[in-house]
Amino acid sequence: MPLSMHSLCAPTYVRLLGNLQNWLDKAQAHAEVRKFDSNNYLGLRLAPDMLPLSRQIQIASDMAKGCMARLSGIEVPKWDDNEATLAELRARAQKGIDYVKSFSAAQIDGSEGREISIPTRAGEPLVFTGENYLKHYALPNFYFHVTTAYALLRHAGVEIGKGDYLGR
Amino acid sequence: MPLSMHSLCAPTYVRLLGNLQNWLDKAQAHAEVRKFDSNNYLGLRLAPDMLPLSRQIQIASDMAKGCMARLSGIEVPKWDDNEATLAELRARAQKGIDYVKSFSAAQIDGSEGREISIPTRAGEPLVFTGENYLKHYALPNFYFHVTTAYALLRHAGVEIGKGDYLGR
Repeated sequence: MPLSMHSLCAPTYVRLLGNLQNWLDKAQAHAEVRKFDSNNYLGLRLAPDMLPLSRQIQIASDMAKGCMARLSGIEVPKWDDNEATLAELRARAQKGIDYVKSFSAAQIDGSEGREISIPTRAGEPLVFTGENYLKHYALPNFYFHVTTAYALLRHAGVEIGKGDYLGR
Repeated sequence: MPLSMHSLCAPTYVRLLGNLQNWLDKAQAHAEVRKFDSNNYLGLRLAPDMLPLSRQIQIASDMAKGCMARLSGIEVPKWDDNEATLAELRARAQKGIDYVKSFSAAQIDGSEGREISIPTRAGEPLVFTGENYLKHYALPNFYFHVTTAYALLRHAGVEIGKGDYLGR
């Protein structure tokens, strides 16, 4: 099989968001053993001017969503960022998985040269080819937020390890 | 240009390891302003049973090295993990960059179906096709260690942000 745009993103999003759900399950179990409110995880930050766990997970799912929508040429749907519990964050990851799975390979493949324009707060959009958007924006951002979520949980004492990250 | 194995890994490794060098430069500057020994960064950990910053950077460069060597079918060179200063860790990232750049696209392209076997401590090797090794082992591991290095520096107060991560 030749390399394809779909095969380079969809399986990674589904796999890592699924792994993230397992980390959240272990976080829930950790909270139950230690008898604290598992929603306390949502506000954890690695630095006071970094985004908290809840936003890391919302943005990770947004990165997967934005990638699939943009590469297929449809408008990126807006999802409210209103998750207030660990269970709701888990559902947000599932929403991302379901969205990624709603695309066929044919909708994404062939998008290497599609022009992708990302609005920025500074005003001037970032403009990429589909291939460069995937390799140098969507995937690095996705991995950044997923790994930061992992780091936050690991830092907080949740019993997860590299195998949980990779999902073996 | 069709998607190629080389284009999916080499530019990412060179870019992120270069970005990481900039984070280390900012860490050095931060230490100088605050008048502490910048080598104190090397032992930072997000959890007592996680690897310290020095190992995160060594492994990130090893992941890039292992990927290029394995996909091209040559033996993976062994690098000593003896970096003892921030400057030496910066040089380790450069060693990774230089190694990645020493491969031509032709040495990596066409490796989608090559059998890749990764030894594990448990005994049974992990066996992948080149394509699955790249997508589900080499890249996720590389991003994991680079992002964890970023998280450690950010947690320690170094003035880096998302733009430094992405390298724009």
